[in-house]
Order: sequence, then C-alpha cells, then structure tokens
Amino acid sequence: MGDILSWNVEDVLFEKEKTELNGSKFLQGNGYMGYRGTLEEFTKEQLVACNLLGIYDKVGDNWREPINAPNGLFTKLYCDDRLMSVLSSEVREHKQVLDIKNGLHKRESVIKQSEDNLITIKSERFLGLENIHLICMKYSFKALKECKVCIETGIDGDVWDINGPHLKNVKAEIYENLIALNSKTSEMNCIIAVSEAIDMDFIGEQDIETDEKSIIRRITVYAKPEIEYTLYKYVSIFTVNDGVVNPSRAAFESCLIALEMGYVNIFTQNCSIWKERWEKSDVEICGDEEAQLALRYSIYHLLSIAPTHTDKASIPARGLSGQVYKGAVFWDTEMFMLPFFIYTNPEIARNLLMYRVNTLEGARRKALEYGYRGAFYAWESQDTGDDACTHFSVTDVFTGRPMRTYFRDKQVHISADVVYGIWQYYLATGDQSLLLDGGAEVILECARFFFSYSYFNKDKNRYEILDVTGPDEYHERVNNNAYTSMMVKYTLEVAIETLELLYKNYPLVYNELILKISFRNELENIKDMEKLLFVPKPDRESGIIEQFSGYEKLEEVTLKVLKERVLNPNEYFGGGNGLATTTKILKQADVVLILNLFKNRYSCEVKKANWEYYEPRTEHGSSLSSCVYAMMASEIGNSEWGYKYFMKTATIDLSGESKQYVGTLYIGGTHPAANGGAWMAAVLGFAGVSFNDQIITIMPQLPEKWESIAFNISLQGQSFSVQAGKTGVKVKASNTNSKNVLFNICGQVKECKIGHEI
Amino acid sequence: MGDILSWNVEDVLFEKEKTELNGSKFLQGNGYMGYRGTLEEFTKEQLVACNLLGIYDKVGDNWREPINAPNGLFTKLYCDDRLMSVLSSEVREHKQVLDIKNGLHKRESVIKQSEDNLITIKSERFLGLENIHLICMKYSFKALKECKVCIETGIDGDVWDINGPHLKNVKAEIYENLIALNSKTSEMNCIIAVSEAIDMDFIGEQDIETDEKSIIRRITVYAKPEIEYTLYKYVSIFTVNDGVVNPSRAAFESCLIALEMGYVNIFTQNCSIWKERWEKSDVEICGDEEAQLALRYSIYHLLSIAPTHTDKASIPARGLSGQVYKGAVFWDTEMFMLPFFIYTNPEIARNLLMYRVNTLEGARRKALEYGYRGAFYAWESQDTGDDACTHFSVTDVFTGRPMRTYFRDKQVHISADVVYGIWQYYLATGDQSLLLDGGAEVILECARFFFSYSYFNKDKNRYEILDVTGPDEYHERVNNNAYTSMMVKYTLEVAIETLELLYKNYPLVYNELILKISFRNELENIKDMEKLLFVPKPDRESGIIEQFSGYEKLEEVTLKVLKERVLNPNEYFGGGNGLATTTKILKQADVVLILNLFKNRYSCEVKKANWEYYEPRTEHGSSLSSCVYAMMASEIGNSEWGYKYFMKTATIDLSGESKQYVGTLYIGGTHPAANGGAWMAAVLGFAGVSFNDQIITIMPQLPEKWESIAFNISLQGQSFSVQAGKTGVKVKASNTNSKNVLFNICGQVKECKIGHEI
Repeated sequence: MGDILSWNVEDVLFEKEKTELNGSKFLQGNGYMGYRGTLEEFTKEQLVACNLLGIYDKVGDNWREPINAPNGLFTKLYCDDRLMSVLSSEVREHKQVLDIKNGLHKRESVIKQSEDNLITIKSERFLGLENIHLICMKYSFKALKECKVCIETGIDGDVWDINGPHLKNVKAEIYENLIALNSKTSEMNCIIAVSEAIDMDFIGEQDIETDEKSIIRRITVYAKPEIEYTLYKYVSIFTVNDGVVNPSRAAFESCLIALEMGYVNIFTQNCSIWKERWEKSDVEICGDEEAQLALRYSIYHLLSIAPTHTDKASIPARGLSGQVYKGAVFWDTEMFMLPFFIYTNPEIARNLLMYRVNTLEGARRKALEYGYRGAFYAWESQDTGDDACTHFSVTDVFTGRPMRTYFRDKQVHISADVVYGIWQYYLATGDQSLLLDGGAEVILECARFFFSYSYFNKDKNRYEILDVTGPDEYHERVNNNAYTSMMVKYTLEVAIETLELLYKNYPLVYNELILKISFRNELENIKDMEKLLFVPKPDRESGIIEQFSGYEKLEEVTLKVLKERVLNPNEYFGGGNGLATTTKILKQADVVLILNLFKNRYSCEVKKANWEYYEPRTEHGSSLSSCVYAMMASEIGNSEWGYKYFMKTATIDLSGESKQYVGTLYIGGTHPAANGGAWMAAVLGFAGVSFNDQIITIMPQLPEKWESIAFNISLQGQSFSVQAGKTGVKVKASNTNSKNVLFNICGQVKECKIGHEI
Repeated sequence: MGDILSWNVEDVLFEKEKTELNGSKFLQGNGYMGYRGTLEEFTKEQLVACNLLGIYDKVGDNWREPINAPNGLFTKLYCDDRLMSVLSSEVREHKQVLDIKNGLHKRESVIKQSEDNLITIKSERFLGLENIHLICMKYSFKALKECKVCIETGIDGDVWDINGPHLKNVKAEIYENLIALNSKTSEMNCIIAVSEAIDMDFIGEQDIETDEKSIIRRITVYAKPEIEYTLYKYVSIFTVNDGVVNPSRAAFESCLIALEMGYVNIFTQNCSIWKERWEKSDVEICGDEEAQLALRYSIYHLLSIAPTHTDKASIPARGLSGQVYKGAVFWDTEMFMLPFFIYTNPEIARNLLMYRVNTLEGARRKALEYGYRGAFYAWESQDTGDDACTHFSVTDVFTGRPMRTYFRDKQVHISADVVYGIWQYYLATGDQSLLLDGGAEVILECARFFFSYSYFNKDKNRYEILDVTGPDEYHERVNNNAYTSMMVKYTLEVAIETLELLYKNYPLVYNELILKISFRNELENIKDMEKLLFVPKPDRESGIIEQFSGYEKLEEVTLKVLKERVLNPNEYFGGGNGLATTTKILKQADVVLILNLFKNRYSCEVKKANWEYYEPRTEHGSSLSSCVYAMMASEIGNSEWGYKYFMKTATIDLSGESKQYVGTLYIGGTHPAANGGAWMAAVLGFAGVSFNDQIITIMPQLPEKWESIAFNISLQGQSFSVQAGKTGVKVKASNTNSKNVLFNICGQVKECKIGHEI
C-alpha cells in the first residue's frame, strides 16, 4: 500500500500563526467526534475542540451550533515549576505528524527548560473505532537533567465556542481512579459526560483539583535524566443521544474497559479497522507522490467523519473540525461526498441518506412556512431538519449591516439534490430498501414541492422554475437557472420511476404510500410538469447553455477587472449590490455541474463549449467548484487543465489556502466536499468510471504525470479492483461477487466473471 | 375671482441661496416651453433655462435629455461701468412676483451703484399663448443720479445643461434690427432658432457683439436722474419640430409681428386667454387663503405646462422646469395630472393620451427587448417612446458605485396606468374618437403584454403577476403587488369592454384592428386571465390588503427607528441593500392608491383599515404620496388628516421643501404630479366628486377651516359650476349643455337640467 511518504502528513517546525490551520490539518475523527489537531497544552484560545456529531445547542439569540465536549486530553507539563509549552517556551525541535494510514496523531517537541536542561515531550493519540466514545493518548516526557516535573492533566471544560457557552451545570466527579466532568447543554438539557482514566509507567504524587469548569490531576515526579516517563490517558464521551440510560456511568465503564485492555491492544485493534477501510477505499496513483498524498489525505478525512454508528446525522460542511457553518449539513453531502461512499462504502451512503428521510418533517415544515406543499429541505440542516440558515447571512462590510441573502428561501435545488442522492444510491447499489424505508416518500414530497413551486407560462406553454438561486450564489433570485431546472426535471423523472417501481414490485407499499401522503391527484401534475418543464438548452450555434434567463445580458468583464474594482478585501461579491451580481462572473460551477451529472444527455461539443465559456468566468469562490471543472476537463480530453483543478481540490486542507476568517468570524476547518471532489476527480474523472443500467464504463484520461491509478469499487453489491494505466485497464472481480458484470472499457464491452480478471 | 393675495406669489428679499429654488418657484410656461424664474442678469450658473418640450438630445454616453434653448432674455446693466446685479451688488430693495392670474413674472430691484446713486431695475415678462413661440419682456431702469448706462442684452447661447453641451454649430445672425442665434442639436442635427427684436422708449448708441456662443447688443445711454428708461424685448423660438420649413425665418417673422403688435396688445391678448383658462379651471376656497393660493398656484403650473399645440409630447415629471429626470414622461401624467385635465380641459387630456398612442411603437420595442409581446411602455418616456430609464439609476453612497435598480424592467404597471388614463378619459368625456385613433390598439397591446408577462400558478389555479416593482419603489421585484395586479385586472376588463364597444359600434374598425394586430387568439387568453388573475384581497378579519406576497413577514419598524439607522443622509432606502427593503416601511401610497382609484370596489371599513395601517408605515419619499393619503382621508371622513396631506402636496413648489440635490446632481424643479394631486385632493377628495356611468356624485367632506369650495367641471361634454359648502351643494348646468344629467349629492339623486341649478 505505497511507501510511508504518502501516508504521513508532517510539520517539522512550530509556527504559532499556524495553530488554527493545523487544528484542521491534523484533525482526527471517527464519525462520532472530531478532535482538532491541537497540542496537549493548548486551550480554547488555540481552538482546541472535541466536536460532537449531531448534537446542537442554541444560546439566547445566537446561531444554533454543534457543541464541543470538554477536552479530556488537556495536559500541561511543568519542569521545576516552569511551564513547558510551545507557545511560551523556546522550542528546539518540533514535529507534528498525522499518520493517516492508522489515524494516529503524533507530536514530539524538544523544549529548552533552562540553560542546561532540555525537555522532550512526545505524544500519540487516536480515536476509537471499535468504541467510538473513546480517545486514547500516550504522553511521554524526558528531561536532559534531573528536575521536578509536574503534570497537569485532566478534563478542561472551558471549551472553545463560537456562539456559546453551551455547557452549563458543569460538575466534576471522582470515582476511584477515574475523574469525570459532566454538564448539560443550554437549550435541551442534554447530558454530556466526559470521563478520564490514566495509567502511568512511573509513580508520582497525585492531587486532583476541580474548579467550576474543569477537573485536573496534578502529578508530581522527580524526573531522572534521560529517562522517558509515560502516561496513558483514556477519555470517554457519552451523551443522552447515545441511547444509554446513564451517560456518565457509560463513560466511566468505557474508561475502565479501555484501562483494562490497554493502549497497545486498542491501537492494534484500531489499526486493523483502518486497514479494512483502506482496502475498500484507497486509490493508488503511480508516478505522482504529491497527488498520491493529497488524494489519500482527502480520503482519510472522508473516512474520519463518516457516521458509521447512526443514520440520524449526516456530514456537516466543515466535517467535524468545529462549529463553523453551524455544524450544518448542506447539499455538499449529497452532491460532493456521497459518490465516494456509494462506490466504496454503501452502508455509510445509506446512513447519510437515511438522515434525509429522518428529517423529512423538517423539510415539510419549511415548505409550509414559505407557502408551498411537499418537502423543501433545509439549506443548513441540523438534527431536526429545520433550517438553521438565516435570512441575513452576510455582513455588508461598507455599512456593517446584516445583508439580506436568499440562501435559505431560494436555493430550492437542495430538495432535488437529496432526490438525486437517493436515486444514485439506488442505481449504484440496487438496494431498494432505502426507498421502502422512507426514500420514496422523500422523492415524492420533493416532486410535490417543485410542482407547487413552479409556474406555468401559458404564453410559452411551459412550466418554469422562477426566482431561485443556483449553485452560483453570486446571482440570487434568477429565473430558469439551468442547474436548478435540470435537477427539478430529474426529480420529476425519478418520482415517476419510483412510483412505477413501487407499483410493480410492492403494490401494497405503493397503495399505502399514495394514501398516506394523498398523492393520487398529484401524479398527473408531476407527469404534466415533467413533459413541459423548461430546462435551458444548449444554443443551436454556440452550444452554450445560458446559466439563467438574462445571464447573456449581464456585463462581460474579466475576473481581473472585477477584482480591480474591489474596495474592501472582505466585501461579498453577491447579494443586492455585489460586484459580481450584475456581471457574468460566477461563484462556482453551475452549468458545468449539470454537464457532469448528466453526462449522457449532452454531446462532447456542448461540454467543451460550456467548459471553455464558463471556466474563465468562474471565480471559484466556493471549494466545491474546482473538482467539477477537473472532472469535466478530463471528460473533454483536457486532463492537464483537469489536473490543475484536481490538485486545488485535493490539497485544500493540506495547504490551508482557503479563507480562515471573515472579519472576526472563524470560518476555517476542513472541506469534506472538496475531499469528496478529489476522489470524484480521480476515479470518476481521470479514471472515467461511470455506471448506467447494467454496464460499468471505464474511460481513463490520466494526467501526463500519472502512470496508473488503482482502486476498488463496489456496484450492485459486486466488488472490483480496477487498475488503469496509460496502456490498458485491468479489472478484477471479487471472488465473493454473486454475478458477472459487463464492462465498457474504452469503448469495448466485456463481461467480467466472478473472481476473474479482464 | 378672489382678491389679489391669492393670485400672487412673491419674494421680497433677495437670497442668493434660493436662486435654484426660485427658478422653479417663479417658473413660467406655455406648454411649448418653460422659462425658469431667474433674473435677467443671471447665466447658466444660476440655472437659467428656457426648456423646450419634447425635443431631446444625447451627447456621448450621457443621458438623453431635453434641451434648453439659448436665453433670449439675457440682460445685464452697467452703470458707470459697474455691473448692477443682485449677485454682486448691494441690494437695497428687491421683489420678485409671479402673477399667476395672468402668467406674468415681475421683478424690481433697487441696487446701490455708488455712495450716492441707486439704480432701480424693473422687469416684466410673459410667454405667448396665442403665439407659443414668443417671449415678451419689458425691462426698465432708473438712476437716482445721472450716470452712463450700458445695457448688454441679446441671446446667450451658453446654456445650462446637465448632460450637455447639446447645441453645436452656433451661428449668430443679424437681420436689420433683429438678431438671432441658430444652432443644431448634437444627436439629430435639429435646428434650434432663436431671434430677438427690441424696442426702446429712448435713444441709445448700439453695438452688436458676437462670440462663439452668443450675440449681444450693447446699448449705451446717459441716464438722467429719476427718469425711467424702458426696453421691450420680443424673443421667438422655433425648431424643426414645429412644422416650419425654415425655423430661423419663422423666428424672425414672429419677432417682427410681435414688434408691430407691441407689448401691451400682446399682453392684453394673453390675459384674456389666461382668463378663459381660469374660468374653466379655477377652484375657489372660502375661508383659507393659504390653501387658496397654494391650490391656485398648483393649477397655474398645470396650465403652464400642458401642451395645447401638440399630441406628440406629454408632460414631463418635472414639468418644463429643466432637464431633471431627463425631461421624461412618467406614470405621473396619467395617474396624477390627467384627472385635472379630463375634468376641466378634455382637449389637453386627449393630447396627453395621444402621446401614448404616438409612442406605441416604442412600447412594443421595449416589450420585445425583454422577451414579451404587446406594449410595455417606457418608465421614462421621451419623444420616441423608447425607455430613457437606465438599469443603474442610483449611486450607492457607500461605494460610489452605480446601483442596479429595477424601475425600467419591473415597474410594469406603467402600461396599465396608460390604459387607465385612456379609459378614464373615455368614461368622463364619452369621446370614442381617442379609441378609434389608436387608443383601442394601445389598450389591447397592453393587455397582451400583461398576458405574456403573467404566470399561471397551477397549484392555486390562478394567474399571478410576479417579479414587479409597484409604486412603493423601496420594495423591488416583489410578487403579486396589490397595485400592479389590480391595475392589470382593470386593463384586462378595459380590453374586453373595448372590444365589445368596437364590435358593437364600429364592426369594421373592430375587424381591421383584430386583423392588424392578430388579436383573434388573444381574446380567450385575456378573458381567461381576467377571470383567474390573483389580486390581493382584504384580509377577512383585519381588512388589510397585503401590499405584496411576503410583505407581512418583513420587519416591523417605525419610521423613526429606521431613520435612526441612516448612516449617510443621501443613502437610498431601496435597492438591494436599502434600509427600507427588508422592512415594512414603504416609499409611497401603494395599496391606498388602489382604494382611491377603485373606490366602489372596497368598503369603507377596508379603506379605513388600510389607510390607518399603511399611513404610519409610509415614508412619503415621493411627492406622489401625500395627495393619495389626502384623498383617502377625506373619503374615510378624516378631513383634518387629509388637510395636512393636501397642504403638503399643494405647497411643494411654493415652500421648496423637496430635495434639490442628490450628491452633485440637481434634481430640483417643479412637481406637476403633486400639483395635479392638489387639485384631485380638493375636488375629488374634499368636494367628493366622482363619476360612474351616468351619474355625477358629490359628497363634500370639507376641512374645518373651509367654508366652501367652488369649481367648474366638464363631464360627457356637459359643463357645471359646483359650489359646495358646509350646509349644502349648489350645481349649475351650463346653458350650452346638450342634455340633462343626474347628480347624486350626498346620497340624494337629482337631475340637473340644461341651464338650471340644483
């Protein structure tokens, strides 16, 4: 599985100004929680966070956001009463490493204690996969000269919050050798229980101190020169969401079990789970180490944040890296992350989609709120499916006033994106259970929503989707947005197919559902609308699809000229008076995105024409944009352009080149949609994998540098290893497959038999 | 006809900072031109202008605007070589008077020439009514001590322009005792010819000097003490628009005739024409001199600017007071000025409406430009009917950038306003010739436009008018604006009635028209839409009509609080990020306006509820707002509130309390719509005059102060004098009437026989 270089992310210098960035870069996650890549001595000022999935809290009029649990890894080292911290001490050597193969975070710092004494601090930590409530840490220190060492370690409840404080009723507890910090959330009184157990290879004097926000052990030892002292910490987190009667007791028990099992055994178990994951998900690239690391790193993030344990939560736009964007789930999940899971880990894909089924009521409430019928999914979805997005999402830098934006009320494509995701899952896996478990209801309610949202233009004898914001958010409230209208059409098609499928295969379910949601009269509406819905078409001469009605009349200006007009570096390009609003400059792929999603419906000439037309007009103000241009570039045979965009997508969290702050608001964190985009660009783009009906197509268009690409995919329950090089493609069917499958490889159709290779 | 006080507008102090304001306040006009109330020694710095109706010019990329003719009244007086000017000399006494009864402007200034010499300058001027190309001036001076007087008088071609210079190829000419300055417009090479003749009651030495922009006589005389010297000037203006072969020759001839006829004779003739006009149009108020003057002054303006000579032009929003608002015709004319003319001078009303017939092609071009069919009238209409309004009409004060506004593309109610005007004219006069001369075609094309603009909501089985800006321009691009939708419905009703009328009375015309504009298939569309068009209705409980869909959800804020949020005194309340945009604060009457226009369709409770709801939320950012609230206030029996708004409307050009500048842009001028509003508030509001079918209703609700109101009206070709007091109403039918007419006076229906009184 490749050499070590492509499995390690490393920083060999401590730079204080990178603490926020590195918190995201060295993030660990296990789907239940994300732990930021901060150092043990850090506190909330350095944005330490143990971010919990799917548990939200609202304080006063502030935004509702996910909570960060008290930090059980908190550890500070004092030598002869002087704090040894990279923040305040002289750092002689420093290394921070993320071993993405095994999900292990390591740090090693050599700190000057005095003129003749150096202290080495080493730590390792990982998040449990077998027990997702668990965090394990090994913490060692060594002094060059003898000195008195005091270790402060425990649970720090003074956590970083954007719109907090979320934790109240903080109570410290001691139970034999275990300590705990239990608290409740502000809005719903959800119990958050954190326990910690330690084990040491040395004997030290121990005190425990508590204050209103923390419980800390103080361990003192007289360290001998050159001797390494090691401490193991086992931290467990439980909340009332976890289906346990007594979260604090569950946390205690989890710590006790970990203590008994021991660090090495838990780590070994963890590694084997990571190994299984990588076997399913890894993509090997020959000939390009930089791309290899970036792509693996992207996959690492997707694996780290995917909820394996629940279908009540989905992946937030900033993963589990903090509270940014309210920990909300956006269309990012369905359109940019889901394909990776569908092709490599369909169970997780199913969880993500079941989250939408489970939040259907919220979507119904939102439709009603705006006077529509059916399901209008939240633009920013949290636990209930109600929309966390506000009507004023951006601050006008010139007046300091909140600016009315239309993400919440006009980005109706979200409902179509959900349907698209469900249907892609069904097509790829063949699994109809998702449809039966609520997926069909979601599809029909979304179709109903679009019917009630649409208007009929009698003059032109067509339905139109008016007054929407497409992916290009710089142009709000437009009519006939190509992306939205195409996605709505697809939703209607899928609704009709779903009904046919149910009617044929599950007539009882069909009747029950039709009755339950009173859909009988709707069917004619949906069919009529599907036939007569206007979707912008390629221009007969130029092949260009107009992004929305009137786009062609907007000002033609280069991105360079537009940027020269900027008066304030933080000014928003969209909104009522935005710089881009009256021009053709777009935020992100919009038309090009539908070319990608509906490859079979557009000719190569149209794809080429639109890529070339829209690419210079795209500002890429969203991290979702590059991967789309990458995929379409390889589709039209321009893999070098595609490579540029692939690298932009794949390195976004490595390079940290994205925006970290807007004004004083932290918006940094990881970019799972870009991570998913990197996988899509590599596998669906360069390797050219696609699937329609019963045939898997592979049409590689590798970048020049790449000798070959190898990966596994799973379709219709059948698994395959694929290796695609410059000269040929090798596909091997798993021995455990249950049927032979047709492949179209670069135009040649072949059958791949169970356990065989083509 | 009342005492002199109520016929004279007077300033008895010269205040330099009021020169711009007084230019509008003392404006004279004769429908062909407007001459600003500036003094003879003023030049373009003081905004001297002889503004011509209906002749436009465009220089470079600047706005197209009407032109100002060279100033033929220019006169400067030097005594012993010192300029006698109110601007630079010590002014001992000063008086500027506008005699609105006779349309005469007078000034008298006593200026200190030296320690022991005072110079008195007196002038009088008027614009010809029999010969609308003529301006006559009598200019006198008198010195206390003997001195050498030099009069510079002639034609000053260095005119004030907002987006000029418009006049090129300026050529001075001398023909016997006449001088002339001829020029051409920049865009279309239209000849503008100005000639001047003088007559003097003294003998002076005369030189004529010309430079590239003017031709000036220099007359020198040694003035004896206490002797008044008088000069008469006759200035004539002709353009190629005036149907003459040789404008400069026509101007010469006009001057010669005037010279022969003499100042006094021409003035006498003029006075008798003014007398006739006042007989038709005056409104006498007993008991309130302030209101009397303000109302007469408003009527004076309407009479001054109405085109009696042409149906190719209509009244611009700032009358003939300059180039402000591009000299464009707005909905102001049909909705705020037309009623005055319909009731008192239907021939002028017909001219104004024929202008819309004559610009139908421009309206068709505009509809096509935006992808619609039919006639979409210009928001800012000039000679061709093409829209002079830009997409960027306001500058953002915070960034200095042009702001995208939607006056041009979304204020679709303009087409309905035109139809409303035509139909009101037809109903009031019974004159079907306007319909036959193109009015019917306008109506049908406007109805067609609205059909093509509308969308059908299948979910709610109704047509909707989406994405429009109503009169309340602070809320752009709204759906189902109450005003717009109601006016569209009316347009459809009128279109159907028009077709029925033609079919019945003029079957040949009907067939020709249907064929000419291919309207046969449209008829069903129009009828269907009329039946199913959604027009916001009064709420069942509150009676409130929602101004547009979603208005109720906007922020509830008082005007006071909103104004406290202002950061820049010139900031625009509307537009993308405007302060009012996201609140319930409206610019001007919107819902209340339809209650006024369709009095019979709404109950008194609904009128009251909406007046009381919208009044505190209205900012009155438009001069069109107050009169609407005034009328509706008297309708709901609250004449004192109505009086407040009436006075605001009627005194707008007297008090000069409206905005004069936005940034460096002059936006001052007269407000003919407010003038028309003052007449409406008095006659249609307080006197309660209305007309439906065959019956004239009079329901007076006079303000407390008013003892009575008296006026003449003309309906269906029948003329009546009305006198309404606190205790009764007297109506006298003219002897020249051709039929008896029914009146409903305060609920009692009576017939008023020819020549009789009730």
